[in-house]
Amino acid sequence: MTATSVQLQHEIKDISLAPLGRKRIEWAGREMPVLRQIRDRFAQERPFEGIRLVACCHVTTETAHLAIALKAGGADALLIASNPLSTQDDVAASLVADHGIPVFAIKGEDNETYHRHVEIALDHKPNIIIDDGSDVVATLIANRQNQLADLIGTTEETTTGIVRLKAMFKDGVLTFPAMNVNDADTKHFFDNRYGTGQSTLDGIIRATNILLAGKTVVVAGYGWCGKGTALRARGMGANVIVTEIDPIRAIEAVMDGFRVMPMAEAAPQGDLFITVTGNKHVIRSEHFDVMKDGAMVCNSGHFDIEIDLKSLGAKATEIRDARNFTQEYRLQSGKSIVVLGEGRLINLAAAEGHPSAVMDMSFANQALACEYLVKNQGKLEPGLHSIPTEVDKEIARLKLTAMGIAVDTLTNEQVEYINSWKSGT
Amino acid sequence: MTATSVQLQHEIKDISLAPLGRKRIEWAGREMPVLRQIRDRFAQERPFEGIRLVACCHVTTETAHLAIALKAGGADALLIASNPLSTQDDVAASLVADHGIPVFAIKGEDNETYHRHVEIALDHKPNIIIDDGSDVVATLIANRQNQLADLIGTTEETTTGIVRLKAMFKDGVLTFPAMNVNDADTKHFFDNRYGTGQSTLDGIIRATNILLAGKTVVVAGYGWCGKGTALRARGMGANVIVTEIDPIRAIEAVMDGFRVMPMAEAAPQGDLFITVTGNKHVIRSEHFDVMKDGAMVCNSGHFDIEIDLKSLGAKATEIRDARNFTQEYRLQSGKSIVVLGEGRLINLAAAEGHPSAVMDMSFANQALACEYLVKNQGKLEPGLHSIPTEVDKEIARLKLTAMGIAVDTLTNEQVEYINSWKSGT
Amino acid sequence: MTATSVQLQHEIKDISLAPLGRKRIEWAGREMPVLRQIRDRFAQERPFEGIRLVACCHVTTETAHLAIALKAGGADALLIASNPLSTQDDVAASLVADHGIPVFAIKGEDNETYHRHVEIALDHKPNIIIDDGSDVVATLIANRQNQLADLIGTTEETTTGIVRLKAMFKDGVLTFPAMNVNDADTKHFFDNRYGTGQSTLDGIIRATNILLAGKTVVVAGYGWCGKGTALRARGMGANVIVTEIDPIRAIEAVMDGFRVMPMAEAAPQGDLFITVTGNKHVIRSEHFDVMKDGAMVCNSGHFDIEIDLKSLGAKATEIRDARNFTQEYRLQSGKSIVVLGEGRLINLAAAEGHPSAVMDMSFANQALACEYLVKNQGKLEPGLHSIPTEVDKEIARLKLTAMGIAVDTLTNEQVEYINSWKSGT
Amino acid sequence: MTATSVQLQHEIKDISLAPLGRKRIEWAGREMPVLRQIRDRFAQERPFEGIRLVACCHVTTETAHLAIALKAGGADALLIASNPLSTQDDVAASLVADHGIPVFAIKGEDNETYHRHVEIALDHKPNIIIDDGSDVVATLIANRQNQLADLIGTTEETTTGIVRLKAMFKDGVLTFPAMNVNDADTKHFFDNRYGTGQSTLDGIIRATNILLAGKTVVVAGYGWCGKGTALRARGMGANVIVTEIDPIRAIEAVMDGFRVMPMAEAAPQGDLFITVTGNKHVIRSEHFDVMKDGAMVCNSGHFDIEIDLKSLGAKATEIRDARNFTQEYRLQSGKSIVVLGEGRLINLAAAEGHPSAVMDMSFANQALACEYLVKNQGKLEPGLHSIPTEVDKEIARLKLTAMGIAVDTLTNEQVEYINSWKSGT
Repeated sequence: MTATSVQLQHEIKDISLAPLGRKRIEWAGREMPVLRQIRDRFAQERPFEGIRLVACCHVTTETAHLAIALKAGGADALLIASNPLSTQDDVAASLVADHGIPVFAIKGEDNETYHRHVEIALDHKPNIIIDDGSDVVATLIANRQNQLADLIGTTEETTTGIVRLKAMFKDGVLTFPAMNVNDADTKHFFDNRYGTGQSTLDGIIRATNILLAGKTVVVAGYGWCGKGTALRARGMGANVIVTEIDPIRAIEAVMDGFRVMPMAEAAPQGDLFITVTGNKHVIRSEHFDVMKDGAMVCNSGHFDIEIDLKSLGAKATEIRDARNFTQEYRLQSGKSIVVLGEGRLINLAAAEGHPSAVMDMSFANQALACEYLVKNQGKLEPGLHSIPTEVDKEIARLKLTAMGIAVDTLTNEQVEYINSWKSGT
Repeated sequence: MTATSVQLQHEIKDISLAPLGRKRIEWAGREMPVLRQIRDRFAQERPFEGIRLVACCHVTTETAHLAIALKAGGADALLIASNPLSTQDDVAASLVADHGIPVFAIKGEDNETYHRHVEIALDHKPNIIIDDGSDVVATLIANRQNQLADLIGTTEETTTGIVRLKAMFKDGVLTFPAMNVNDADTKHFFDNRYGTGQSTLDGIIRATNILLAGKTVVVAGYGWCGKGTALRARGMGANVIVTEIDPIRAIEAVMDGFRVMPMAEAAPQGDLFITVTGNKHVIRSEHFDVMKDGAMVCNSGHFDIEIDLKSLGAKATEIRDARNFTQEYRLQSGKSIVVLGEGRLINLAAAEGHPSAVMDMSFANQALACEYLVKNQGKLEPGLHSIPTEVDKEIARLKLTAMGIAVDTLTNEQVEYINSWKSGT
Repeated sequence: MTATSVQLQHEIKDISLAPLGRKRIEWAGREMPVLRQIRDRFAQERPFEGIRLVACCHVTTETAHLAIALKAGGADALLIASNPLSTQDDVAASLVADHGIPVFAIKGEDNETYHRHVEIALDHKPNIIIDDGSDVVATLIANRQNQLADLIGTTEETTTGIVRLKAMFKDGVLTFPAMNVNDADTKHFFDNRYGTGQSTLDGIIRATNILLAGKTVVVAGYGWCGKGTALRARGMGANVIVTEIDPIRAIEAVMDGFRVMPMAEAAPQGDLFITVTGNKHVIRSEHFDVMKDGAMVCNSGHFDIEIDLKSLGAKATEIRDARNFTQEYRLQSGKSIVVLGEGRLINLAAAEGHPSAVMDMSFANQALACEYLVKNQGKLEPGLHSIPTEVDKEIARLKLTAMGIAVDTLTNEQVEYINSWKSGT
Repeated sequence: MTATSVQLQHEIKDISLAPLGRKRIEWAGREMPVLRQIRDRFAQERPFEGIRLVACCHVTTETAHLAIALKAGGADALLIASNPLSTQDDVAASLVADHGIPVFAIKGEDNETYHRHVEIALDHKPNIIIDDGSDVVATLIANRQNQLADLIGTTEETTTGIVRLKAMFKDGVLTFPAMNVNDADTKHFFDNRYGTGQSTLDGIIRATNILLAGKTVVVAGYGWCGKGTALRARGMGANVIVTEIDPIRAIEAVMDGFRVMPMAEAAPQGDLFITVTGNKHVIRSEHFDVMKDGAMVCNSGHFDIEIDLKSLGAKATEIRDARNFTQEYRLQSGKSIVVLGEGRLINLAAAEGHPSAVMDMSFANQALACEYLVKNQGKLEPGLHSIPTEVDKEIARLKLTAMGIAVDTLTNEQVEYINSWKSGT
């Protein structure tokens, strides 16, 4: 890729940010030993030779390592942002300048630009799509049926995206294999729980600098992201209320020591609300009406629809910036509600997204899922596929080794015992 | 069932303990609202009319409620102990005297008696077997092939039993349906985790009265039981080390803040060891050799084989009772190792087993699994079957309602959103 | 002391329990290395030669070690119970039979007997009184002014007793030195917090076998005992509400993540109530009226006055034993309230009191406080005295060493730095 | 104060930052209701009319509220930075431009500038000094004995400063009253524990973006700051080792579930080291030598001397910036050590210092301590004085009220009980 073509093929904030991005990408690499080993193998084996690949991801230092690994494996990769607010402009610059990877992503881009970038990505005629929330795949299906023949498959790593893919499958439009990266244990146990847990609080604290100890925090949703968020909020001294629609998760939250109640009941009690449900309008007009003056709301689910900001805006007489990523809505009723990060993923809007250490495993799954799609081209049924268990365990094993942690291995006697049903009491 | 037949058909410690047992059974019922509602329905619908049923369970106040519910549903039920040390003799007496249920179980019965009781159970020619560790089913397959025709199916609620059933299936001898009760979310999330967690510590404290704060506790196994045990041990101020063979669970333990290492490395550091692996000889000769003087070992997995007590006995010059359920092995090396509950389930040996509140859901699964087997007689494939999701969620819903806890329900808009893949960023 | 006098000078349940008591005392000794070292020194130095000593304590295995250490030091020691329900009859028997120490204590003794034992203790004409709640000292002041001349001083280890001694001092009747053992860091940090925390929950679980996870537990009082109880209840998965009268402790509880509210507001929410305030009628008529059906109340403060059982009794139509140490009050309103341990210290009523490991430090303070009184006879002002800091730290140091834990020591450079004010930014 | 004098009397980064500072100061005010009430009262009562006051503090949004309150009370106040790295330049600008308060503080100022500002502050001839680490007071004593006559007294809020004042008192040079603000319960319980706890982790995460879950974190010191830091690090999933020199604190840490060991033993195990001791060279040459490659070290104690960076620098072949506030020392041995925030207070260097909610109480103590000094001018002995208990409790009460939390009040019966020693068992 020549300098000329680079100049043509990107749309980023400022190429001069590249040195800063390079330094930050290098730093993130310290905590990503698994992806580093995969990249080294890819560089030797070149599994993606001749493959056009589109990655729609949060453009962060960790994504940079994924993109670099894919390129090292021979992929003709193009990167777009999966969220208008999550792009780290210096990283985008370094990927273009230092690694010759075309990037179309600008922090704070408007919706029109966002969708234009999706179209640019599809113009790349991808064989593989790494998607994050399923926007690229949904657009492909809706508008570019003629390109489906080019597609080997897609990978998806968010709960939100998986829900959409299932709906597509039910509608009969998912006619190609989709790797469910989110379902890998080494993905959702860690990324969704420990990653979202820490980075959500990090985003909230950077946006507000409030003390969490003693605050009543309402976490909407007790899936893996919600579990992580509730756990870490308690770890910082907050008193946590959980809302759920699933009765099993609800009892789980109760037995983990949290209060569980409907949002309508929680709304007047919370100091801070965090949505992590993957659903729409979890906090809405009727809830705003009963919140305390000064209550703060934010979202850590994939899309910015979990909080019904339109209805809040309709109640407001004034919306003003109180701090970066912190807007105060002054309502007709006299009270004010504070919205963080415009209802977009707060960990990416106000902080740096998930720490590298968890993305290391998530993106190892992404990289290996892409390789799996290519290696099994033509053999996989349309629809969702799990990451093979051996891949999942191997990632865990690489990670443990990199952390210097050893585990036990079964003795022969134990292997025999597990496989026999004859010895009992 | 007449008074005469009752006198013939039981083998228990002391029928005069019945009043105490009745009072304790009544007490347990306060925390078992789900099973109570099922019993009431069974009493009306009589789903087990004409069904011979054998239940091999820990004979506790909670099991009493299961047995009573099954009998209310019309079952010709017979109860034997699933563990020689776990029987509560007063409960056995009350079931015989107050409820006319034949029971064969005596706390501290020897192995010969235990196996004789299994044979008595099989003499009952069961149509349904509720098993706990798979001893009854294994014996049936090994010795009574001619009775297989009578069998509609079995239910199993322990991890250990499921491992055995899988081995049976692989060997081609599991020729009937087996309901995997352990796999129900309302079972293993709660019973294995919160039940085992609390009751294991309870058993240890009753046996020893030691302070857990500041002790180094080694938990072998980070499955649901291990997670619960590690969580509660930390909750009491212990410093917890986890040992595992599975790399994914190992990283999970690390990110939950525990130290993870092989048992050989943990052995010299621990003050107290708890095995919850479902495997054999997890603590063995080489580990005893490097333990501290006075180290305590106990087991909360199903069978008493997780600790290799034979090898410990071979090193001992003296074994003496230090307290109830607490034996000190004085070793040739001069140090001593303390064994709790003879290596059997410590929560049942030294305490009262799982609290009623969790067994309420576990046994609701058992009762409904039995009903499911009967209702689907002839329709189910041989092998393991999951509890249907609707049953699982319904149990959770009944429990929440009984606890006075409400959850959210989806709005129409949300239902529509979840089922559509078209709306994205 | 001859066998004859032993026969005369004790009032215990059953001397034949001595072998069991001996075994249990021996077991407790494993966790009491500090007191063991003190006993060994006392045996050589005989600091209490010729001293008549009365100890009014919970007669437990740990107290046995204190009594034995004092006797080894030459004391003419006599032991009475500090609480009618807390005596371990086997321990009392062993102290009499194996150690020749006169004991007057029977589990479940009535109030008349309790007070008669206090008088017997005073008939011993003590030079030193080890008191626990200040009943012996209060009786001495009220009824036996003529014996004050004999008294060198007293030691007191409960918050409750210290409050009473302060009131005595204000009234001008505390005319002798009183060592405030409760105030020693190695006492209240550990005994009150970690000891009460674990043993209170232990008593509750033994009495009820309820699952704590998911229960709403109301802890009245956030002093050291309350902090320990709230911490451990949360550690077992409970959702904890704290009530307080002190605003500073109240904010501390809030920032520790607990809900804080007045008892009147907490009463209808709690599943289980635990009082640890040192005050009277913290739960009273108006609170019972609004509690849930089946709510449980218990006390872990020194005296049985924290719950107003008289007012509850007046509302009851029936009081029946549901389990050992568990009484159900059926009220006219139709609901029932469950009282554990008759409102007496639940950890001593239903379990075995504080674990030996914490009592090791508390009783090391007691033993050294007695020695300090004797060594400083005639030199100490009347009123409360703290345990000297060096004694406090030395106890901690002995304990750490026994636990095999090393700490850092200051370098010369650091000593110099700490003593200089000249080096700054 | 005229515009002219403002222009003369300040030394700040950039006056044009004032609008940003104003907005951030306003935001902080939301969480500072106690100081707001005090400011309102001061504005009416003007207790500092005619008083020259110097405040040497971290120049943050919270300090701004203190300065504004003092000025509202009539003080002729001047503000300098207490730490070269902690100044928020926008806040300094707003205090000058919007409030006419002379400020001398620039983020990143060198040591020479720092000391020059101390001299400027003393040129103000203060009657009251609010000090933070005791640099102003130490300089006054060392160099300006002639100004001592002007001084009414000083207040000090850091553990470090109190240690220095005690050393001064021992040396006989503390000839005026010093209010020990640090000792107030509403200060050190909250600010040192919950404030330092949260903000230290905040600073570390902003500087590094590392995942804390699964990391081994070594906390040097288990005073209030260390307790808070260890608690929150565990709350984020870290495995925490504590080092101490005090045996009582060491056992406390053990019983809180942490590992305790000397630094020499912890050094090779830690991934991240945090010093909060108030002492010098707690991490030094011998420790760096055995640390893992990539280990990170930072400080949250007052002065930048807890880590011996000079000795580390001597081992380094290269020191390079890896991220903002993150420097990598490449050592001759081949490994690298990462130093955060140059060893200065990491919460102020890389984050925004303590959250407003805790500073509200700390600075309420400062404001009321100044008022107390003025009101009791001439009546207080030289040396350290505690904040009166009533002041301390009143601050807590105001805070609770502002948080909407009610506590219990004693009934008449309870007041009587507490004051009587006659009722016992």
